Amino acid sequence: MQTLSSTRPATNSSATSELAQRYTEVRQYTEQLCGGLQPEDYVPQPIADVSPPKWHLAHTTWFFETFVLSQHLDDYQPYDERFAFLFNSYYEAAGPRILRTKRGNLTRPSTEEIYRYRKAVDKAMQDLFCRKANDAALTELVTLGLNHEQQHQELLVTDIKYILGHNPLFPNYSEQRLKNLSANTPDRWVSMPAGIYEIGYDGHNFCFDNELGRHRVFLEDYQIRNQVISAGEYLEFMKDGGYEEVSHWLSEGWAYAKTLDQRAPLHWHLKDDQWWQYTPAGLLPLQKDAPVTHVSYYEADAYARWAEARLATEFEWEAAHHQLEWGQVWEWTSSAYGPYPGFSTAPGALGEYNGKWMVNQQTLRGASVATSPGHSRPTYRNFFHPDKRWQYSGIRLARS
Amino acid sequence: MQTLSSTRPATNSSATSELAQRYTEVRQYTEQLCGGLQPEDYVPQPIADVSPPKWHLAHTTWFFETFVLSQHLDDYQPYDERFAFLFNSYYEAAGPRILRTKRGNLTRPSTEEIYRYRKAVDKAMQDLFCRKANDAALTELVTLGLNHEQQHQELLVTDIKYILGHNPLFPNYSEQRLKNLSANTPDRWVSMPAGIYEIGYDGHNFCFDNELGRHRVFLEDYQIRNQVISAGEYLEFMKDGGYEEVSHWLSEGWAYAKTLDQRAPLHWHLKDDQWWQYTPAGLLPLQKDAPVTHVSYYEADAYARWAEARLATEFEWEAAHHQLEWGQVWEWTSSAYGPYPGFSTAPGALGEYNGKWMVNQQTLRGASVATSPGHSRPTYRNFFHPDKRWQYSGIRLARS
Amino acid sequence: MQTLSSTRPATNSSATSELAQRYTEVRQYTEQLCGGLQPEDYVPQPIADVSPPKWHLAHTTWFFETFVLSQHLDDYQPYDERFAFLFNSYYEAAGPRILRTKRGNLTRPSTEEIYRYRKAVDKAMQDLFCRKANDAALTELVTLGLNHEQQHQELLVTDIKYILGHNPLFPNYSEQRLKNLSANTPDRWVSMPAGIYEIGYDGHNFCFDNELGRHRVFLEDYQIRNQVISAGEYLEFMKDGGYEEVSHWLSEGWAYAKTLDQRAPLHWHLKDDQWWQYTPAGLLPLQKDAPVTHVSYYEADAYARWAEARLATEFEWEAAHHQLEWGQVWEWTSSAYGPYPGFSTAPGALGEYNGKWMVNQQTLRGASVATSPGHSRPTYRNFFHPDKRWQYSGIRLARS
Amino acid sequence: MQTLSSTRPATNSSATSELAQRYTEVRQYTEQLCGGLQPEDYVPQPIADVSPPKWHLAHTTWFFETFVLSQHLDDYQPYDERFAFLFNSYYEAAGPRILRTKRGNLTRPSTEEIYRYRKAVDKAMQDLFCRKANDAALTELVTLGLNHEQQHQELLVTDIKYILGHNPLFPNYSEQRLKNLSANTPDRWVSMPAGIYEIGYDGHNFCFDNELGRHRVFLEDYQIRNQVISAGEYLEFMKDGGYEEVSHWLSEGWAYAKTLDQRAPLHWHLKDDQWWQYTPAGLLPLQKDAPVTHVSYYEADAYARWAEARLATEFEWEAAHHQLEWGQVWEWTSSAYGPYPGFSTAPGALGEYNGKWMVNQQTLRGASVATSPGHSRPTYRNFFHPDKRWQYSGIRLARS
Repeated sequence: MQTLSSTRPATNSSATSELAQRYTEVRQYTEQLCGGLQPEDYVPQPIADVSPPKWHLAHTTWFFETFVLSQHLDDYQPYDERFAFLFNSYYEAAGPRILRTKRGNLTRPSTEEIYRYRKAVDKAMQDLFCRKANDAALTELVTLGLNHEQQHQELLVTDIKYILGHNPLFPNYSEQRLKNLSANTPDRWVSMPAGIYEIGYDGHNFCFDNELGRHRVFLEDYQIRNQVISAGEYLEFMKDGGYEEVSHWLSEGWAYAKTLDQRAPLHWHLKDDQWWQYTPAGLLPLQKDAPVTHVSYYEADAYARWAEARLATEFEWEAAHHQLEWGQVWEWTSSAYGPYPGFSTAPGALGEYNGKWMVNQQTLRGASVATSPGHSRPTYRNFFHPDKRWQYSGIRLARS
Repeated sequence: MQTLSSTRPATNSSATSELAQRYTEVRQYTEQLCGGLQPEDYVPQPIADVSPPKWHLAHTTWFFETFVLSQHLDDYQPYDERFAFLFNSYYEAAGPRILRTKRGNLTRPSTEEIYRYRKAVDKAMQDLFCRKANDAALTELVTLGLNHEQQHQELLVTDIKYILGHNPLFPNYSEQRLKNLSANTPDRWVSMPAGIYEIGYDGHNFCFDNELGRHRVFLEDYQIRNQVISAGEYLEFMKDGGYEEVSHWLSEGWAYAKTLDQRAPLHWHLKDDQWWQYTPAGLLPLQKDAPVTHVSYYEADAYARWAEARLATEFEWEAAHHQLEWGQVWEWTSSAYGPYPGFSTAPGALGEYNGKWMVNQQTLRGASVATSPGHSRPTYRNFFHPDKRWQYSGIRLARS
Repeated sequence: MQTLSSTRPATNSSATSELAQRYTEVRQYTEQLCGGLQPEDYVPQPIADVSPPKWHLAHTTWFFETFVLSQHLDDYQPYDERFAFLFNSYYEAAGPRILRTKRGNLTRPSTEEIYRYRKAVDKAMQDLFCRKANDAALTELVTLGLNHEQQHQELLVTDIKYILGHNPLFPNYSEQRLKNLSANTPDRWVSMPAGIYEIGYDGHNFCFDNELGRHRVFLEDYQIRNQVISAGEYLEFMKDGGYEEVSHWLSEGWAYAKTLDQRAPLHWHLKDDQWWQYTPAGLLPLQKDAPVTHVSYYEADAYARWAEARLATEFEWEAAHHQLEWGQVWEWTSSAYGPYPGFSTAPGALGEYNGKWMVNQQTLRGASVATSPGHSRPTYRNFFHPDKRWQYSGIRLARS
Repeated sequence: MQTLSSTRPATNSSATSELAQRYTEVRQYTEQLCGGLQPEDYVPQPIADVSPPKWHLAHTTWFFETFVLSQHLDDYQPYDERFAFLFNSYYEAAGPRILRTKRGNLTRPSTEEIYRYRKAVDKAMQDLFCRKANDAALTELVTLGLNHEQQHQELLVTDIKYILGHNPLFPNYSEQRLKNLSANTPDRWVSMPAGIYEIGYDGHNFCFDNELGRHRVFLEDYQIRNQVISAGEYLEFMKDGGYEEVSHWLSEGWAYAKTLDQRAPLHWHLKDDQWWQYTPAGLLPLQKDAPVTHVSYYEADAYARWAEARLATEFEWEAAHHQLEWGQVWEWTSSAYGPYPGFSTAPGALGEYNGKWMVNQQTLRGASVATSPGHSRPTYRNFFHPDKRWQYSGIRLARS
């Protein structure tokens, strides 16, 4: 998930002090998420997609330093000039940076030092809030920075899960859990009539630039399930030989399925003929009534074909969202991630936030158990390559 | 381009004899395309995308043998039972096959033998046409087979061009040439009003299954250029440092551009500060007034951003097609290749024709100088991965 | 096998006419080896090690053109100046050349053209022989060129075998066969006493530079088998689980064995529980009394350990060669390929012939059924990387 | 460097208490080497060759647990049964283990836990020493374990140097330094006469199995330099275009040189036209009078050819060792690493220590500034692949 915003934050007279408080809350929440870690857990990058926790702590801080402090304070001295090279993620316009795949080799600066870096930047930010109360441009940038940090909060959760979930000791480090699907709103097809629907953000609060360009789409009649697919349902697909039947799969999905060490969602483990799943609370028996998570787009698509249905488009999802139960998993849609009509990017480095990723990725809608409080909305567009599955990604069915 | 059809061929009383004649014409055209080849040119596979000419000759024949003769003749004996393993392309349901990347190692059967194979199958087909006059199912299958062969005709042209265009001797083997863009219809923006447009095939002749599911889309106001971009215009982009300015590029495109041996379209060569291009007629000076060809999606997209425009969606293209000049190049669209509402695949191996490729590819619209006569229509959906550029692929601009 | 010579050819008054005749014989033999080929067989390069037959025909000709004609004739005009780029193998000092792995893409010049190239160069060579009778330097260079061509003759045999042996049709193209091991000289251990032995070439005829630097080595007592290992003996190793028992294998060999599609020598095939082997005469039942061939060093070494013996050093082999039966297979030795004391290379491109390969390869001694007549001697040092097995490579045991 | 021993430790009545003391010293020295590390430094594995410091701490402990405690104590309970999977290096016979390349992902057990593991095993070892005084087999195994730990001590030094030397902050963590070459023993050629020399270990103390099989070799006359090559001398090679002149290089070396980010020894950095080198004391100006270090075999060999000399064989080195200054760097020899006559391996897992690496590696002789006290002798055979250079590897010249 690589993203960015640009737009219309609400600003009023007490905005800055609210902003200062909001800043503090978000920044503290990041550190809370690392509560269960031991010093070594902050370091590794087992696959290119997964960044070291200490890197997230530093990168989000670098973001405020580079895009807020350096822009708004003429005399700002970076905490350490070398950090720009270490903690820039992908902003070409912000200068050179270490190879993305080498983040896990960076033992220095130490985590302790990075926490000091956070403190120093936080203090400078609070000073700035005092000096520039009611500065709309500042508010906008800070709001973006906080949403950026919230995106990294979700990555922190899933990256830590990946790191510890691939350790043969399967450590228990948090109580976070999936809930079962609601029995009160039993699974059913929601029917949606053909017609023109408006898509995209239309509110007065923050959104990312990729949600803008509100526009009309025409949808033919369709149906969409009000609940997502459960782990138990997915297990039926597996038991029915779903991973072995080529006709369910996209051609690239079939090639992908053959590369899997185990033909099952990520974090699932078969022991003595029983399925277990790794969770932040350690290795637990598979929770069949909870949503299936950690499937790739290829698996979601194959499941849908097996179930004689299909995935929804992101427009179908957004048009029907009032009638859907959502919020434990990101839901793969059949829509490739692209620009809305009239999409434009901000000038400079921040313009790289969302636009440059608009090829070869699929949009996901909803929000997950790992999404930070206050960081979801019906127009939110998450996106990943179709083979990725280290996020809490799940499946919702539709049909024409 | 991997494709297939299923549908509504026109059948009437004289259909079969027309079909027999059409069959002969299409099959002969394939062999005409190989007229300029020497025996060695039939063999190699320099990259995975490019198949040996002799393989195309055999594969298209295998297609008729497997999906027509074996289905319609109970007592049909395959010409050689081992050919199924050698000449199946990607039909999982039709059995095992040699690795796609190893086609260039198959020196036997010889090209001469493959021509005998073609003759034998052609004779069996003509016998079948006599025995089963007016068989609608047969007509449908044969029509599909001929459209399939026409697709391979275009690949023959571009694969041969790739093979000989990467030979340091730059052989001249055909007179085929691009024409200059028309000066009579000067380049301009065509304005299209917002509204509902119908998309997809609605005629009574052949089309592929991916064109079906005619449906409504809503398009906001847009403009689209009536001509495609010329080589001279693309050269301006190059001279302006287009390949070196990151802000024009998608992130994956930027990485792609860095891997190019030469930052220019495929088949372009710089000699003594002048640009040349390899053509079937050998290495010729760059023809600036002709369409630019052999660019990847990444390059097309970067060009559009440099030109302060964007690529059209495939729906915008189809809605405006009456007002466009098209037919020398396939035009990259910004639409990812996916199913129309209600898309469904045929059962069995032929169901693998189009549907299983619907991820990570971009749709191209139009037709090219290499497209076989009678093999284009406004609803035709070609598709390739965004890094491919060995086809005659070009650029048309749009804007909101 | 990459090699070269430099030395002491015998030259006397009638040497040149003898040389002219020898030249003709060797050159013709190369073309005879291609007698069973169809035009397509000349083209492909299925793996980097295997060169296209047409490339061998051209490269050996380029060698004479570059190192003889261009050196000895001031006014020599190359047949085609572009061929140097196409047919130089690895001589950095002789200028740029096409990537080794891309030889299989070169459909032009055609094989027919290459045969014309051979004729033209042969004619120029014969003219040169007339003009420069009794020129010692010329004789030396030509002798080297002929030995070079003989090395490529052996590669032609094994490369063709690889190309056709990996075709599912298993074509029969020649009668060449292995003979059974001699029953008259039953297998036994030959005992060799400790002492100083002289190693390296000491004659008056041609040898390669890597055989020079005749020197003394001290060998401790050892025993060496007078015959090589048969296919039947190797089958015993396989039946005893030799490929599955890690303790027999070098660490890199164990990793190598896991990558094999089939745990057996190259060109062996299991059908209906019987072993077959591909031979120039097609797929035949395994000939158990003939030498095992087409094993890698890793397999030879593992076999020896399983047999509670070891491979011989190249010095042990040379010291005992009078008492050994040799000549159907190249025999892996435990000696890494390196320089003899005082080894030096010729100046210029020809100096690259042998010296630059002296790392990470193992020496093989003997000669094989594919070795050209007159191209073997007891001091001959062949060499390949330990994973290579497309040559007729076999196993001889020794012990201390 | 992967190694092991088997032999003749001196055992007498007070051996065990000496052994217990020796055990304590060696084990403590390992932990001293980690004195300058921060918690994060223990974790990463930036390249496959470099293991995480915490892995070394645990693996050497696992070695004593597996090969000593479990063998000598019937009732021994492993500290944690899961550690065998995590900390086995390459002993196939000792069971499955995590992929070598994934050691850097193992954040748990924590370093703190690993230190507790060390303490627990150390205590069990001391108990064992008390219970089994004067047990020769025990003494032999423990001696091996301590030599094994010393080998990992050297790897600890070089692995830490690699980890911190690739951090853009170039941390200073130790005072260890190279000394300049001695001016009192000026550089000169030592002449050695032809004759038979005895090679291999012949003492009464510990040695590794690969040093055994003392045997005779015959050496022709040769000369060898009494000092190794200095950084300043190597700089001359660089300034003379040594990395750009193909004739100096082995073919594989030339390909290797082209892959280098910087054509200089590892840990060298060019800043403002001056050469610096990373050392445990941080980034310092290049010390020209000290030995050149961190060169690959390819570079050592190319340097020698440039200098119109060659590398010594390991036998030449051993025969002349009394007359050489050695001990700051391991010296590449031209000898491929192989078995001495009569070499045999121990049964079981310990037999994998040295023998299975005897292909594609070069022997290095001497000892380096990172070699542990008491861990060097003239017959010691170190070995690495020719492209490796993260050890303190240097160059000594010879000539015939």
